[in-house]
Amino acid sequence: MGISRKISKAMEASSWIRKMFEEGAQLKKEKGAENVYDFTLGNPITEPPKAFEDKLKALLAADTTPGTHAYMPNSGLVGVREKIAAYLKAQTGLPYAFNHITMTVGAAGGLNVTLKALLDPGDEVLALSPFFVEYGVYADNHGGILKPVPTTEAFLPDLEKLAAAITPATKALIINSPNNPTGVVYPKEVLTALGDLLVKASQKVGHAIYLISDEPYRKIAFDKTEVPYPSLFYKDTLLITSHSKDLSLPGERIGYIAIHPESTDAQALATATNFTNRILGYVNAPALMQRVVADLQEEPADVAGYQEKRDLFYPALTAFGYEIVKPKGAFYLFPKAPGGDDVAFVNHLKKYDILAVPGTGFGTPGYFRLAYCVRNSIIEKSLDGFKKAIEDLA
Amino acid sequence: MGISRKISKAMEASSWIRKMFEEGAQLKKEKGAENVYDFTLGNPITEPPKAFEDKLKALLAADTTPGTHAYMPNSGLVGVREKIAAYLKAQTGLPYAFNHITMTVGAAGGLNVTLKALLDPGDEVLALSPFFVEYGVYADNHGGILKPVPTTEAFLPDLEKLAAAITPATKALIINSPNNPTGVVYPKEVLTALGDLLVKASQKVGHAIYLISDEPYRKIAFDKTEVPYPSLFYKDTLLITSHSKDLSLPGERIGYIAIHPESTDAQALATATNFTNRILGYVNAPALMQRVVADLQEEPADVAGYQEKRDLFYPALTAFGYEIVKPKGAFYLFPKAPGGDDVAFVNHLKKYDILAVPGTGFGTPGYFRLAYCVRNSIIEKSLDGFKKAIEDLA
Repeated sequence: MGISRKISKAMEASSWIRKMFEEGAQLKKEKGAENVYDFTLGNPITEPPKAFEDKLKALLAADTTPGTHAYMPNSGLVGVREKIAAYLKAQTGLPYAFNHITMTVGAAGGLNVTLKALLDPGDEVLALSPFFVEYGVYADNHGGILKPVPTTEAFLPDLEKLAAAITPATKALIINSPNNPTGVVYPKEVLTALGDLLVKASQKVGHAIYLISDEPYRKIAFDKTEVPYPSLFYKDTLLITSHSKDLSLPGERIGYIAIHPESTDAQALATATNFTNRILGYVNAPALMQRVVADLQEEPADVAGYQEKRDLFYPALTAFGYEIVKPKGAFYLFPKAPGGDDVAFVNHLKKYDILAVPGTGFGTPGYFRLAYCVRNSIIEKSLDGFKKAIEDLA
Repeated sequence: MGISRKISKAMEASSWIRKMFEEGAQLKKEKGAENVYDFTLGNPITEPPKAFEDKLKALLAADTTPGTHAYMPNSGLVGVREKIAAYLKAQTGLPYAFNHITMTVGAAGGLNVTLKALLDPGDEVLALSPFFVEYGVYADNHGGILKPVPTTEAFLPDLEKLAAAITPATKALIINSPNNPTGVVYPKEVLTALGDLLVKASQKVGHAIYLISDEPYRKIAFDKTEVPYPSLFYKDTLLITSHSKDLSLPGERIGYIAIHPESTDAQALATATNFTNRILGYVNAPALMQRVVADLQEEPADVAGYQEKRDLFYPALTAFGYEIVKPKGAFYLFPKAPGGDDVAFVNHLKKYDILAVPGTGFGTPGYFRLAYCVRNSIIEKSLDGFKKAIEDLA
């Protein structure tokens, strides 16, 4: 008996993403990094905006206040939370105040803090497949059970299937719009119907079913697509986000939870997320990064850059015969796997030095994910391989 | 059903430290912060050393390498881990290499990552009381059960009681030297005996019992007291530390796990902590802070400053009649509670505007903790109150 048997098993069955990453590293070693087209990781090639660097330097130059690297309330610096609350209030019209905000170690930290605050052993968490594979692990971390619910062909919530999946054990539903891995954005009418469904279902089961809205891609939306706030359509919503994608800061681990101010349990949720942030060992989100991002809430993401990549990639693959729901945000394509077997097709793509992730890794076999947050030249040079790969199966 | 019933209960029974903190905040509001002597929190008043600020500014001025805020291996930046491994190798003579190091979100993150990697449901973790109260919560987070084992009158490991507490379910023992809350430092002979005991016990139960050595106070030792590395006395040791105390950076959440290079399971532990760092939602330790602390491993803590505080506080309280094991490190005193009832005495101290934490909060009733990482004037002005408080009980 060395390491945990449970962890040992989980590692064996672990994320395809990381597995592909390692195989990619090997392929790059053999062929040279420039000759491998790696679409496996949602790690933005885009650098943080100049405003980030400027703000960081300005803080360090100006600030001699004692205690700036010290402990703080577990939910984060009050001044930072006030700024974020003000931003969200301006965005949504909802009366967010600092006490509704818990600063977290990225969105991954925020999701764990939230699930720890909500779940008792055996509680069920619904996720709409395809979904970010770590949701299942996060629910399990805190004794919960993830139940995937299929979406429609357009990757939108299937309300009938969702209603059928809700039981008295259902504690929460996680949604993610703009979506990883599909790039789909949930429009207002979908969120309206979803909100209605959750109100009715909560009444039926006799307790609030929380909507956990994982929104790190909110600012990356194309063709002027509006990204409505799910919080506006259902009051028992926890908005969770990070600045990993919009400010390209994934390594700095900075994000937050925003509890709907009108949620039945707003105060209890705030107290609980403050507590679980501590007991999970995060203690608080990194202090310096809290202060930096507080003033960058209005900073836009590099939407034009990502849209250029999508407009390079999506039409070309479609022209080759790939079937793809056109993404309206984030930086992923989720095509159907030609031949139907996603694992086989992803293995086949390696013949052309292309790395992708099978849809199986997102609870949705038969598709594969391409993360196109890469240099345009990588997309361009990969196209010939994609063409040949689908032709091989014709 | 709103928040988790389990969390709701845990909050009710929660850490005395935080409770005292809130009462302290109230008292400060009433009396003015300068007039309350708050010894409840291990939040250093000492600012980070100048070398920290210099390094941070230098990094920002010099560095234009792309990807410095991007994702990275979950265990952290390889260059950073190489520097830390080199430092530990120089300190201990053990063949640490980068792959033995997992960068973590502080020591609290490191403890959770380690326990998640080690524990299966029902596994037992031993801790020597008095101990940092969060150990129990951390073990519970991952399905483990904390079993406190009393120490000797001098707060050193009681080897007989420890041996008696070990069962086939025992997976790990957590130690903490220099110790919170006692300030005790474990000398070589104690660690030698402890290592021998663990070797024998591991053979007896048929699996390695891991020694988790929580060492954030290593650099804060007085009177030139040597702080031996537990890793030198037992190979199945995981050293866990942070720079919260030695560099006064608790808000920045930066620390690491160092796996003993000769541990039976070194490679499996490294893979598992990489994995659990990810699945717990930490993902990786904050990138910028990793790079800052990599070059500050040799930086000394403000030992003289803390020793001055101890030498102001300990003799005075002893002269008033308080019974205290003289601390050799960290920044805590753990006196016996006059009258024997720690909760009653801590409440009594409030009469003199003194805030302390009952030993009950450290699994050891009958004592109380004073965190003296405060301004010297706070210690000086508090003394009269301490004198009166013990006289009241005479």
